[in-house]
Amino acid sequence: MSVSLGELAVRFGLELRGDPDVRIDGVAPLGAGREHALSFLANPRYARALASTRAAAVVLDQASAATSPVPCLISENPYAAYARIAAYLFPAPAVTPGIHPSAIIDRAARIDPTASVGAGAVIEAGARIGPRSCVGPHCTVSAGVVVGEDVRLVGQVFLGERVVLGSRVVIHPGAVLGADGFGFAPDRGVFVKVPQLGGVRIGDDVEIGANTTIDRGALGDTIVEEGVKLDNLIQIAHNARIGAHTVIAASTGVSGSVSIGKRCMIGGAVGFAGHISICDDVSIAGYSVITHTIKQPGVYSGLIPSEEASTWRRIVARLKRIEFLAARVSRLEQKLNMRASGAQSEDDE
Amino acid sequence: MSVSLGELAVRFGLELRGDPDVRIDGVAPLGAGREHALSFLANPRYARALASTRAAAVVLDQASAATSPVPCLISENPYAAYARIAAYLFPAPAVTPGIHPSAIIDRAARIDPTASVGAGAVIEAGARIGPRSCVGPHCTVSAGVVVGEDVRLVGQVFLGERVVLGSRVVIHPGAVLGADGFGFAPDRGVFVKVPQLGGVRIGDDVEIGANTTIDRGALGDTIVEEGVKLDNLIQIAHNARIGAHTVIAASTGVSGSVSIGKRCMIGGAVGFAGHISICDDVSIAGYSVITHTIKQPGVYSGLIPSEEASTWRRIVARLKRIEFLAARVSRLEQKLNMRASGAQSEDDE
Amino acid sequence: MSVSLGELAVRFGLELRGDPDVRIDGVAPLGAGREHALSFLANPRYARALASTRAAAVVLDQASAATSPVPCLISENPYAAYARIAAYLFPAPAVTPGIHPSAIIDRAARIDPTASVGAGAVIEAGARIGPRSCVGPHCTVSAGVVVGEDVRLVGQVFLGERVVLGSRVVIHPGAVLGADGFGFAPDRGVFVKVPQLGGVRIGDDVEIGANTTIDRGALGDTIVEEGVKLDNLIQIAHNARIGAHTVIAASTGVSGSVSIGKRCMIGGAVGFAGHISICDDVSIAGYSVITHTIKQPGVYSGLIPSEEASTWRRIVARLKRIEFLAARVSRLEQKLNMRASGAQSEDDE
Repeated sequence: MSVSLGELAVRFGLELRGDPDVRIDGVAPLGAGREHALSFLANPRYARALASTRAAAVVLDQASAATSPVPCLISENPYAAYARIAAYLFPAPAVTPGIHPSAIIDRAARIDPTASVGAGAVIEAGARIGPRSCVGPHCTVSAGVVVGEDVRLVGQVFLGERVVLGSRVVIHPGAVLGADGFGFAPDRGVFVKVPQLGGVRIGDDVEIGANTTIDRGALGDTIVEEGVKLDNLIQIAHNARIGAHTVIAASTGVSGSVSIGKRCMIGGAVGFAGHISICDDVSIAGYSVITHTIKQPGVYSGLIPSEEASTWRRIVARLKRIEFLAARVSRLEQKLNMRASGAQSEDDE
Repeated sequence: MSVSLGELAVRFGLELRGDPDVRIDGVAPLGAGREHALSFLANPRYARALASTRAAAVVLDQASAATSPVPCLISENPYAAYARIAAYLFPAPAVTPGIHPSAIIDRAARIDPTASVGAGAVIEAGARIGPRSCVGPHCTVSAGVVVGEDVRLVGQVFLGERVVLGSRVVIHPGAVLGADGFGFAPDRGVFVKVPQLGGVRIGDDVEIGANTTIDRGALGDTIVEEGVKLDNLIQIAHNARIGAHTVIAASTGVSGSVSIGKRCMIGGAVGFAGHISICDDVSIAGYSVITHTIKQPGVYSGLIPSEEASTWRRIVARLKRIEFLAARVSRLEQKLNMRASGAQSEDDE
Repeated sequence: MSVSLGELAVRFGLELRGDPDVRIDGVAPLGAGREHALSFLANPRYARALASTRAAAVVLDQASAATSPVPCLISENPYAAYARIAAYLFPAPAVTPGIHPSAIIDRAARIDPTASVGAGAVIEAGARIGPRSCVGPHCTVSAGVVVGEDVRLVGQVFLGERVVLGSRVVIHPGAVLGADGFGFAPDRGVFVKVPQLGGVRIGDDVEIGANTTIDRGALGDTIVEEGVKLDNLIQIAHNARIGAHTVIAASTGVSGSVSIGKRCMIGGAVGFAGHISICDDVSIAGYSVITHTIKQPGVYSGLIPSEEASTWRRIVARLKRIEFLAARVSRLEQKLNMRASGAQSEDDE
């Protein structure tokens, strides 16, 4: 597809600076632009690349526009504007309705005639696939699962029983929804399996990354509300609830019965102790461990940046002996008849 | 299924308090009980929900029984008692013997006539599937693999060569057993692959979560003993051994040749350095890193709970300069002619 | 296969000490050797096992040779020498050319006649499979993907569109290459998906572990250079680059646009903040978090070994109050009219 910069400005409601007849037929990184390619500048880290860009035009904000050597489209949110333009230039391939002859569909499954089912996909009894949804190759849709409209299961996705997907959900390969939650009751040295009888409910416009796992609830459902975006290799345990429009980066683990609020931003490899609640609008730095309920919106962290290894070893050794350091300070205070005062008094007990 | 409370009390050997004719046909969370539903109270965190429960009856311990507003079944271990009753009310669906016509079975595979093989499953030459075992859709059972009795491979499970499963093993989707261990010998700037010639042996009554990986041994086998329960997204490296009735929560990584004892409780996202041993009856808090052999049963931790981010940044900055803080204390001690005594003396060297 | 120790010495250029006619037909761990088995000693941790080994012969270094009770092959790098001998004794099974009748191959795919395609594999339009490559059961090779020569996709591997593999690449089950990167632009409370238009390029001789995920680039490609070895459950985000001959252990996460140099050794469960660069020849201890660009080769760490839990809780409590401890030291210094001098002066501000 080739469009003029002027058409893009009109279609996306952006201010145009420069020649409206410049043709755009693709996108490119700012540092590697090419003829007819549109680029964007959203992260100040890359501002220096603007001066030398070979892109035909750039989407950027008002402040950066003055220094652009090429025509530009101005947006308060250049990244979102770029995302919409790129989606317009490169639309997802249209879903071709139909069922691949190698797919294995139970007679008691209901596939909308506008849906697409790929090679080798398995759809069991009672499952329902909604209009224009696409079930990719090697997906398994278990008995009774409900898939909404315009859903895309890219391929090799496993949906266990009692999984319900809203509309416009995207699930990447290897994701497993609806496996049994991890519930075992210890009893005289062995573990008795606690039947996992709930399901998984996924809201509209959710995206789920590759090899992410979302277990079914023990009783009641595990719930991912609308607009949530989950990266790869995330674990969502049974009966967790993820609030609307929350995003979670890769390798994070959400323990059982954790409730995370709306519009939270969770970094990668974060952990949550079980049975806690996180309120709306909380940001958590990657590699943090959240052990208690959070009732106050804000930013939380437990991340410790690494060091050159011998320096770090000395720090760790000192940390391990921090009680001795505190005891030495106490003895100094005694010698000088000083008391650790105020908030510090607890420090000696 | 509908049973009376009296029947449940007799069948599971529990003390009944209240009307034995109350009918039970399902289970429900304590806070959301409904007519004919059985609930349970095992975690004191939920004790308050008892007073207002709408469940028909509750499984709980002697101490809680006095305050129950509804009939109750009393157990020293209410969670295990509930687990057994729930499994009785909701038995796993019976395995329907037979091979789905789309399954791809090598002629030299041996499938017990009482076993079930699902849609699109692949079973290679020499593999053996035991009585009443269920191979779900899209599973791969490689050449020579042995699957015991009453095993359930839920779906999309990959069993590589030289994998042997005991009986009553449950494996959730996406789990990979028997991939090559990560063995490479550095040699003049490149890595030479070390052939991974061992297998994987899984004991009876083991459960393995979704997308968990258990690599084959380099020489000898990787071993998971009976009764072990593994959550999702766990990595078990080559030649590790997990002792009987140990449970491991999600996202934990067990390095090569690590030996973990029996009845250990390992939290989520725990790490183990390679080639170490953990004795029986060790508990490890989530997000801990175990770098040395543990010879003493007990509880171990390396977990640091997160903080509000600006507070945390100050703590980290101070931690990074802890050597300076110690030096300041030493200078104070010199000024006062005090020596760091006893156990602390090492602190200055 | 059975060979004499003398033949092995000649073929692999190793010094032989002992009887050249000893027959070798297999390998075994040093501690569990058996007749006709070759063992090796590379890790000093296992040196004690040498004295009592029942192996027929051992590969070891000059220093250990003196104490060997059995014939030995001497190498400066016993582990690499062992790896090569083991690969010679146990060659990977030859690829049997041909397409399994259950495989689902698009007419517009090009499969080299010497390649092998396994049961239920799906190969889409325009995909190319090179000479002697093996596509295992249940693999998905999406439209346009290029697979080089002598590649082994073990099984259940998903290759999304715009993935290009070099030669001699090995990919273990459950690995997903070419899923969409995690790119969403926040815009007034919701997230706009940023089209992920790049691909994934994998160099020659790369090995990728089970359930590892490598996302496609947003613009441009995610790149894994030749000789890289990736363990299981690793996340490589969009537009990352992993330099040649770097090895990464399990469960590590590489964030978007991170560039890692050549010959790096990255431990397990390591994290990298986005958009940073790591120079060549860097080693990073497991469980470290790298938040800044590293320009200096060396060893880096952020690992904190765990402790007995009650000891650890005291350390954490003290760490959380480290600011108070510093304030107490400052007050002592004031009392004694001492100033924190030199490098420490910043410590008080």
